[in-house]
Amino acid sequence: MTQTTQDADGRVAVGLLGLGTVGSGTITLLRRSAAEIERRCGARIEVRRALVRDLRRARSADAEAVPLTLEPKDILEDPQIQIVVELMGGLEPARTYVEAALCAGKHVVTANKALIAKHGSALFRVADEHGVTLSFEAAVGGGIPIIKTLRESLASNRIDQVIGIVNGTSNYILTEMAQGDASFETALAQAQALGYAEADPTFDVEGIDAAHKLSILAAIAFGAPITFDAVYTEGISHLTAVDIRFAHELGYRIKHLAIAIRHHEGIELRVHPTLVPAHRLMANVAGVMNAVFVRGDAIGEALLYGAGAGAAATASAVVADITDVMRVIEAEPRYRVPHLGFRAGAIEPQPLLPVSEVVTAYYLRLAVIDHPGALAEITRALADAGVSIESLRQLPPSEEGVATLVLLTHGVKEAQLDAALARIGQLDVVRERITRLRLHQFDE
Amino acid sequence: MTQTTQDADGRVAVGLLGLGTVGSGTITLLRRSAAEIERRCGARIEVRRALVRDLRRARSADAEAVPLTLEPKDILEDPQIQIVVELMGGLEPARTYVEAALCAGKHVVTANKALIAKHGSALFRVADEHGVTLSFEAAVGGGIPIIKTLRESLASNRIDQVIGIVNGTSNYILTEMAQGDASFETALAQAQALGYAEADPTFDVEGIDAAHKLSILAAIAFGAPITFDAVYTEGISHLTAVDIRFAHELGYRIKHLAIAIRHHEGIELRVHPTLVPAHRLMANVAGVMNAVFVRGDAIGEALLYGAGAGAAATASAVVADITDVMRVIEAEPRYRVPHLGFRAGAIEPQPLLPVSEVVTAYYLRLAVIDHPGALAEITRALADAGVSIESLRQLPPSEEGVATLVLLTHGVKEAQLDAALARIGQLDVVRERITRLRLHQFDE
Repeated sequence: MTQTTQDADGRVAVGLLGLGTVGSGTITLLRRSAAEIERRCGARIEVRRALVRDLRRARSADAEAVPLTLEPKDILEDPQIQIVVELMGGLEPARTYVEAALCAGKHVVTANKALIAKHGSALFRVADEHGVTLSFEAAVGGGIPIIKTLRESLASNRIDQVIGIVNGTSNYILTEMAQGDASFETALAQAQALGYAEADPTFDVEGIDAAHKLSILAAIAFGAPITFDAVYTEGISHLTAVDIRFAHELGYRIKHLAIAIRHHEGIELRVHPTLVPAHRLMANVAGVMNAVFVRGDAIGEALLYGAGAGAAATASAVVADITDVMRVIEAEPRYRVPHLGFRAGAIEPQPLLPVSEVVTAYYLRLAVIDHPGALAEITRALADAGVSIESLRQLPPSEEGVATLVLLTHGVKEAQLDAALARIGQLDVVRERITRLRLHQFDE
Repeated sequence: MTQTTQDADGRVAVGLLGLGTVGSGTITLLRRSAAEIERRCGARIEVRRALVRDLRRARSADAEAVPLTLEPKDILEDPQIQIVVELMGGLEPARTYVEAALCAGKHVVTANKALIAKHGSALFRVADEHGVTLSFEAAVGGGIPIIKTLRESLASNRIDQVIGIVNGTSNYILTEMAQGDASFETALAQAQALGYAEADPTFDVEGIDAAHKLSILAAIAFGAPITFDAVYTEGISHLTAVDIRFAHELGYRIKHLAIAIRHHEGIELRVHPTLVPAHRLMANVAGVMNAVFVRGDAIGEALLYGAGAGAAATASAVVADITDVMRVIEAEPRYRVPHLGFRAGAIEPQPLLPVSEVVTAYYLRLAVIDHPGALAEITRALADAGVSIESLRQLPPSEEGVATLVLLTHGVKEAQLDAALARIGQLDVVRERITRLRLHQFDE
């Protein structure tokens, strides 16, 4: 059963799954911008019902005006509801509800990146089978229209790079560490106090959230299936203030980047802290802001910047998806933009490069015993493994006679660097663990 | 007569008006990305014919493959052509041809900002009457999807600011002046040598091109009619290296900004050189790149950055428009996004603030006779007119006893500043013309 009618008076009925921060923000935005939306789309959006877990919880005045229910079927089986907006987050029961809504011929709009990263391919198939759309602009980059840009505006481009700061929590922590010379723990506590980080910050600071988003971006950019499990993921919890300071002195900032690059041989997908030249726009994205850099063969280099999270910005993307669906709700499915930008039959699996095959430049910091031959031994080990040094800085030894050596390398295959570091780690002159961070110049 | 059929084999026939840089770039891109477009849209775009002024002119290999004509009617009256792409530039005969194409039931895609700024409102009406679309993403910001973002992605936002670097030529010249400490004339000559500026650079360096673009952006952002004639326009030809240097020393960069701000009392539309704090992303947009900052009540602050000109980037936007039209070419007109994002009946004229009513901060540079009471006289005149000083710097006098005074003011109504400067200009202690530049902090 496909819902194909708007109300006679141009009203579109929406059912909301979840009424947390983003859900409440969406209701507030729909009320506040009702006139603006009608001026643009010629129709009104009515939130007919919202699914919640607790009917008695205190809610905003806007949310109070919406009928609540504890029963999913009050939304999923209501024939008047044409669009279901899923804002519960998490995999279950979100997946089950979304699938049920699609099977009932309802369009679905979601902000759930984990759901799309893990189950997107299967859910898109269900949507296609039932002639409806599953939209997810809000899943990546909050209000930034990166999904629409990749799917529609860059339709003629062969895209070979998508690189972003896509997790506001991590970027806030890194900004605090850089500006306040703070430790990771101090900056995280600050982020938690401000509500930018959750009590359990693992998903954000260990890069899992960013990896979800990267897998979605890469699929749309390259026309490949979503492959979340293949993303190499490294968080920011091991970063120290001393490396951030050295990076600054060398003219770099450390950002937590999600990197998707397409080569002739395959695709690399990686999330990790990265040194970025200080003059690049990406290096100047501060606080909870997000930015996504795209390179295509026609457009060249482009960057989209904005709030990557927050109730209002995310709601902005949710409502953009709703208005897109509204515009073509009565039209045939073939008029709609395909879920991943490419038609379902044109999605092509592409080989994935393991991180050991990735070529990138590195920042290395070593604690070295102050001894005449030490530097020679280290540079010899690097040279033997084919690692070329771009610059090198040796800081005066501590009282214990341990000097700090900071190196920047040219681009080298990760496996080669690993080999060199394994050998260097065994040298008698090297103390402590070697710090190794990747570096991206944004010019290759 | 409305064209409503695609070829049986999923081919869309396009006619090209104009085969200059962007026209040739569009043909090249369509050939190179034919497979990518078919993967995304399920149809092929065939350039059936191109209108040129000279059949014998040498062309690229890709362009050579397209049948040429000197006769507009070979395109405008060809019933097989469903989409006309106008890349001639200028007002006439572009306007006549575009109108004829729309009247013949053909969709039109154009990169012509002057045409849209001057005749957009009338042409949109013609398009609506004939059930077709006039698309113009390429008219502003080259490949940057700013039109689509404003029209679709920010549909639920009440937008109150759109501020951009929208002319690559001017930005290139300003970047050269800043980095090379060059004069305007030297930097312009450099831009001309590289093909970034035309032999007659007036449109670019005097801000007319930027004003065209600003009037289009403001209409879409605010849902107001396009009002090109109301834009206050000031170019960059009067800028001197000395002011750029002083601005740097004070922590600012000088950028040529196109500014549209909506206040309760009305809209301000102005194009002029502007001091921008050096840490803002906008201050770091270098060379021929463009960027547009948008502020909306839901999305907050966002910025889109990319190549604002060039054959490939502009062609990227042209082809994006073609693919958008292709998707809904057989659908009813009501499924399409309205020309200005708002439905024709919902476009509302809004009062325009004259520049004398605009409140902004200023940079002032004065040549002052080195005399104990000079500074007191100047600050008194400013205070009397209600101009508040944010900072002040006095440079040691030259051998002729003339000191340089550089002032930054707080925000003040332009009429008040004019009154103060009129009085200061008559003081005996002030020599030469007073230099006055506006300043925007991006935090109001």
